[in-house]
Amino acid sequence: MTRGDSTGRGEQVEGRRAVAELLRAGRRRVRTVFVARNVDADPLVDEIVDRAGDRLQSVAPDRIAAMAATDAPQGVIARADALRDVDPDELLRATDAFLVALDGVTDPHNLGAVLRAAETAGATGAILPRHRSARLTPVVAKAAAGALEYLPIATVAGIPAFLERAKRAKVWSVGLDERGEQSVYDLAFLDDPVVVVLGAEGRGLARLTRDRCDVLAHIPMHGSLASLNVATAAAVACHAIARTRSVVA
Amino acid sequence: MTRGDSTGRGEQVEGRRAVAELLRAGRRRVRTVFVARNVDADPLVDEIVDRAGDRLQSVAPDRIAAMAATDAPQGVIARADALRDVDPDELLRATDAFLVALDGVTDPHNLGAVLRAAETAGATGAILPRHRSARLTPVVAKAAAGALEYLPIATVAGIPAFLERAKRAKVWSVGLDERGEQSVYDLAFLDDPVVVVLGAEGRGLARLTRDRCDVLAHIPMHGSLASLNVATAAAVACHAIARTRSVVA
Repeated sequence: MTRGDSTGRGEQVEGRRAVAELLRAGRRRVRTVFVARNVDADPLVDEIVDRAGDRLQSVAPDRIAAMAATDAPQGVIARADALRDVDPDELLRATDAFLVALDGVTDPHNLGAVLRAAETAGATGAILPRHRSARLTPVVAKAAAGALEYLPIATVAGIPAFLERAKRAKVWSVGLDERGEQSVYDLAFLDDPVVVVLGAEGRGLARLTRDRCDVLAHIPMHGSLASLNVATAAAVACHAIARTRSVVA
Repeated sequence: MTRGDSTGRGEQVEGRRAVAELLRAGRRRVRTVFVARNVDADPLVDEIVDRAGDRLQSVAPDRIAAMAATDAPQGVIARADALRDVDPDELLRATDAFLVALDGVTDPHNLGAVLRAAETAGATGAILPRHRSARLTPVVAKAAAGALEYLPIATVAGIPAFLERAKRAKVWSVGLDERGEQSVYDLAFLDDPVVVVLGAEGRGLARLTRDRCDVLAHIPMHGSLASLNVATAAAVACHAIARTRSVVA
């Protein structure tokens, strides 16, 4: 096994939280769980060892280091079947659809952190463009801390075309934009199916994507800085939406 | 100049956003701004060059690489006077005090991201323990994306003792904890002076810190995962508090 044999669909999972959630979720076949012989015991490692059963391989620390694609695999690496790519129309059809579409988020730490934030807010799926996006590499899987196991992910040719499909499916699209006219706290339709659209770090939403959104919304800023990191913005926006939806529900 | 000559008080600032904010804020003396000769021009680089004036040094790209303490300095590194360490009691005395205390956040990316999130939520200061905390290294400064220039930071011997001082100063303390009994959305005293207390990644709040908090509050989770990254949790909690405070104000 080398770093190169992953196709970027979550096949290699590193780090304690991400591997523990892979095993807990049980949604895809886990082939092998490599644990470094010198690993610090903690409850999460105990659980991983327990759940891995005969799929466990206790290995030398430098074997973990050689296999790792992340900076800090924390002594644990798992190999699993690739994640299933779900049908975007299936995600749009859900009556409780709460989707997150990522337009050009190329930094893998940010992509993973956005997926984690979205999952904890109760998002029902994520949409990634086939190009201009980080693939689901080990770095993404680790930053997502298990979100890849629970959050269905669809890949589309482009976000603007996906937003047209959302419109036909009567799913509202909210683009997150510093210059958006509405506050994310004042969106009126959040109990309807919704897709939150997030742009690339620095540049924000591409013009074509912005034009296709039903509403552009901003997160109110109370200090001197004008913007948030994309993962932080996703967390604030998705949890604000989750709060509204849970009050309505 | 080498990587070693920083004392960890923000003296070396890397990355376009962080350097641009250093120059915009103008709160401390900037000695030199190094810009790589091959840097991609963009509005932020133009602004940096313009504001740097005769402090600008155009250098070879490998000189930037040799000086950099972060992975991606984006062709821009500044050297400035150390950040002033503010008096924690001064922060506690402010009638609009909205503080963030970090108990054992040792990952520099997380520390920087927490400071950025807090600043955008209108926090009036941050409290770091002298030990068990990342120092204000270039990695922190870059992740903070300029927040170090605006958010006053106090260093204390320990967070539990600081919380005693907060209590005497009639500043409410809210510990963020997955098992906290209240939701961060239901806190009743958020228009009073408040300090939000955040624990280390993984472990959460230390027992002594937890015991000193007036209230323990959780962020409602709507998916399968049980926790958020500390920077994301800080963002959701601080922006929820900012929202309440701005409605009250």
